[in-house]
Amino acid sequence: MRRFLINQAKGLVDHSRRQHHKSPSFLSPQSRPLASLSRFFSSTSEMSASDSTSSLPVTLDSINPKVLKCEYAVRGEIVNIAQKLQEDLKANKDAYPFDEIIYCNIGNPQSLGQLPIRFFREVLALCDHASLLDESETHGLFSTDSIDRAWKILDQIPGRATGAYSHSQGIKGLRDVIAAGIEARDGFPADPNDIFLTDGASPAVHMMMQLLLSSKKDGILCPIPQYPLYSASIALHGGSLVPYYLDEATGWGLEISDLKKQLEEARSKGIAVRALVVINPGNPTGQVLAEDNQRDIVNFCKQEGLVLLADEVYQENVYVPDKKFHSFKKVARSLGYGEKDISLVSFQSVSKGYYGECGKRGGYMEVTGFTSDVREQIYKMASVNLCSNISGQILASLVMSPPKPGDDSYDSYMAERDGILSSMAKRAKTLEDGLNSLEGVTCNRAEGAMYLFPRINLPQKAIEAAEAEKTAPDAFYCKRLLNATGVVVVPGSGFGQAPGTWHFRCTILPQEDKIPAIVNRLTEFHKSFMDEFRD
Amino acid sequence: MRRFLINQAKGLVDHSRRQHHKSPSFLSPQSRPLASLSRFFSSTSEMSASDSTSSLPVTLDSINPKVLKCEYAVRGEIVNIAQKLQEDLKANKDAYPFDEIIYCNIGNPQSLGQLPIRFFREVLALCDHASLLDESETHGLFSTDSIDRAWKILDQIPGRATGAYSHSQGIKGLRDVIAAGIEARDGFPADPNDIFLTDGASPAVHMMMQLLLSSKKDGILCPIPQYPLYSASIALHGGSLVPYYLDEATGWGLEISDLKKQLEEARSKGIAVRALVVINPGNPTGQVLAEDNQRDIVNFCKQEGLVLLADEVYQENVYVPDKKFHSFKKVARSLGYGEKDISLVSFQSVSKGYYGECGKRGGYMEVTGFTSDVREQIYKMASVNLCSNISGQILASLVMSPPKPGDDSYDSYMAERDGILSSMAKRAKTLEDGLNSLEGVTCNRAEGAMYLFPRINLPQKAIEAAEAEKTAPDAFYCKRLLNATGVVVVPGSGFGQAPGTWHFRCTILPQEDKIPAIVNRLTEFHKSFMDEFRD
Repeated sequence: MRRFLINQAKGLVDHSRRQHHKSPSFLSPQSRPLASLSRFFSSTSEMSASDSTSSLPVTLDSINPKVLKCEYAVRGEIVNIAQKLQEDLKANKDAYPFDEIIYCNIGNPQSLGQLPIRFFREVLALCDHASLLDESETHGLFSTDSIDRAWKILDQIPGRATGAYSHSQGIKGLRDVIAAGIEARDGFPADPNDIFLTDGASPAVHMMMQLLLSSKKDGILCPIPQYPLYSASIALHGGSLVPYYLDEATGWGLEISDLKKQLEEARSKGIAVRALVVINPGNPTGQVLAEDNQRDIVNFCKQEGLVLLADEVYQENVYVPDKKFHSFKKVARSLGYGEKDISLVSFQSVSKGYYGECGKRGGYMEVTGFTSDVREQIYKMASVNLCSNISGQILASLVMSPPKPGDDSYDSYMAERDGILSSMAKRAKTLEDGLNSLEGVTCNRAEGAMYLFPRINLPQKAIEAAEAEKTAPDAFYCKRLLNATGVVVVPGSGFGQAPGTWHFRCTILPQEDKIPAIVNRLTEFHKSFMDEFRD
Repeated sequence: MRRFLINQAKGLVDHSRRQHHKSPSFLSPQSRPLASLSRFFSSTSEMSASDSTSSLPVTLDSINPKVLKCEYAVRGEIVNIAQKLQEDLKANKDAYPFDEIIYCNIGNPQSLGQLPIRFFREVLALCDHASLLDESETHGLFSTDSIDRAWKILDQIPGRATGAYSHSQGIKGLRDVIAAGIEARDGFPADPNDIFLTDGASPAVHMMMQLLLSSKKDGILCPIPQYPLYSASIALHGGSLVPYYLDEATGWGLEISDLKKQLEEARSKGIAVRALVVINPGNPTGQVLAEDNQRDIVNFCKQEGLVLLADEVYQENVYVPDKKFHSFKKVARSLGYGEKDISLVSFQSVSKGYYGECGKRGGYMEVTGFTSDVREQIYKMASVNLCSNISGQILASLVMSPPKPGDDSYDSYMAERDGILSSMAKRAKTLEDGLNSLEGVTCNRAEGAMYLFPRINLPQKAIEAAEAEKTAPDAFYCKRLLNATGVVVVPGSGFGQAPGTWHFRCTILPQEDKIPAIVNRLTEFHKSFMDEFRD
């Protein structure tokens, strides 16, 4: 076995071995290190309070109030506390009743031990250091198809210059590959000139928000619960978030009647609603939309003149046999809507799927149904940042065009891919069952994406205890959970939820062998918590 | 010689061979393919006009007017024309009196044949595909120090997961290396917690503008001429650009009296000036500031309560023996100003220097002199985009900590580095002399950066001809130059210039063997142009 892999495996074993050293004592008295922070989701923890005697020119009063307003729970207070605990553990491994922090707050698979797909990394390495392609030893080290693919990619890059800025939409040859991948997926044509390659999906979302939002009078229909990138981006760009609620009782269903009601209410307040955000498969909710529901959404956007912003970054993450991913573009085209009928932006990322290459910051948006003059403005916005990173661009083309039957890497690629996806499905099911077995907790099925979003029916005493600490009740629960178990989850209040309900988001990403221990810890913690606060 | 290198070299030779096929006929009658575009620096050329019968919801009238206002000349109309010409040449190599488009519009060295530094690419490849580190063949293919460095970097990444999102400021171990590099450069301490790694310098600049600008009432002092990222970013974030003029007559000197005058004038209009942008070495102007001038600037910011935004991305690009790069942080600390005295942000990028790794999108900002609560806001903004790309982060650490004497790669690294920098210096000088020999053209010395910014004294008849075409006179000149020679330069009006003066920006980046031909073509074109329009 290999040194790098051995070391990586060793790290995982060490961690899980240490986990069994201590018998967890839940609800330890030491409480939130950051209780002094006034907002729930503020940021870095290590800094001391502002020096009032300072003569520094920038103060909270003088900065852009939109920045102040923006919140991003996924990396908010709870993560700062976790990082603090982790540092304490480094200094003293007996500081807490657990040995490691398990980050279930963010869809970051490789941080929890998922290995990258070998073929993708082979191609990236060859493109990064292309003179390897001239060496005979390379043929012993790399698969034949990775070498072929690297040559093909280099030939698509003007001057083979992987270190040059590319076209601001991304390298044309890579966009051709991506468009062909979309065509193969949907069965409808895709145009490489509609593809904008970006450093992950987030900058693409920001770009569309920046384009569409001029002031508070411009609104975006957003699901509640939602991935807080949307609320953060709408806040940063000064628009209004117009919420529509996903219906937990029907597996996070999306009711057109509710959409319509919220739209009309917003319009009656003078808000021009510009777009509808749909996240499918859902984040944080994990549902996969049914095709007829998608048809209704498309028709609604068409009738109401809304841009459809389709977050489809979990398109590869579907875990149940009765659901299938359909892109909104495919649904729209199936309904007969073309380029002149509906404005549709689809976001995709290399960070999710079975690849989970978050650190590579690759992604794209497919922009269809915009007039040429508006497209020029989108291009101009892209050009101000010159281009997205080339490794991310290459990876985006690879995930849309992985090895095919007959390719040297095909069998190992399929084994890696299926291993990851089937393990994710198992982990989702084990966690879902574990959560549903807890007193007062109900958890919808994780049909897709990387998350569970259980509802916790908190006892009144717990809600009062949270209020006494000026904390949202679900944040109170999540901090207690963290302090007792080292497991980091994100309070539902960071995503939005129906008033009076409380949730948390937990990823399904810890490695499979860790899941039973996590379920045990959650179960023990929850029991103690309920015992302490039961009415 | 190696296949990859041979092929790359062959491409260059083919290009230059083809260049001699035709005798250039300047001022060909075919004129601007994009004359119909109303704004000077609009974008993509291929699209047809907006379909007025369309029912699409988004129109130029309904989008964010800040986006409409934003302009970015470096990738503006002139580049669209160039791309169109390039496509025409592909279809018909005899379409124009030249064989290739030479992009002197943008600081993109590797697009013009500069090779990446081998050590950097070795480390990136090993980090991308870390299981190479387990193979014995790797020792034959990679330098010893690249292998050591890759191990060191992997050990700095939690779980060795190069595919995971990192801390939103960047991987802590890499920030340690960068801080140590800054300390070694300046002789003053640097704190890794002050470093924010970003996808190139541009997103860092946007982040600071977003923080500082709330409305038109917030201003940023910007040099004129300036790199249009600044004007674009100020426009996108809705602030006011408060111009100060660099003095061409004194080698693009920065006069504190002018700064003061502009500041007072802005304040008298009710604009709260938040920050001063200084680009050193200068872009597009190429000057390197004298240390006593820098001291005056620091004192001015201190006295006036301005954040100093120091664009120092060309810190490695200094070509004259009588000038030296000094960071503004070093200058401020030398004056005795500490963390509580002055707010200073320094931007650095892997795109410039001798490395020129534009496509990798790596960079950082060092943020000093901000209160902890404002720092938390900056961190929050960084966290909304999760993190910058890890390859770019690694590269940023490498450029701040290249091979040292005694390392396996040291000699070859130094040869590559010095070869690139001394060739840039030669190219700058040859172009500068060539430009200064033209009738009515004066060009300041390129002391640093990657550009020349010659002033062209255009005949009145040329100015009238431009006006008749509703084009800025320098844009008129640059388009004529492009259509006649295939050389792409950017009109001075894209950077700003003293009223009534006309310039263009030309990079010094075409490979050395091409420079004489470029000077000849420029000279011939200029002569014909002057003959046509001389008063």
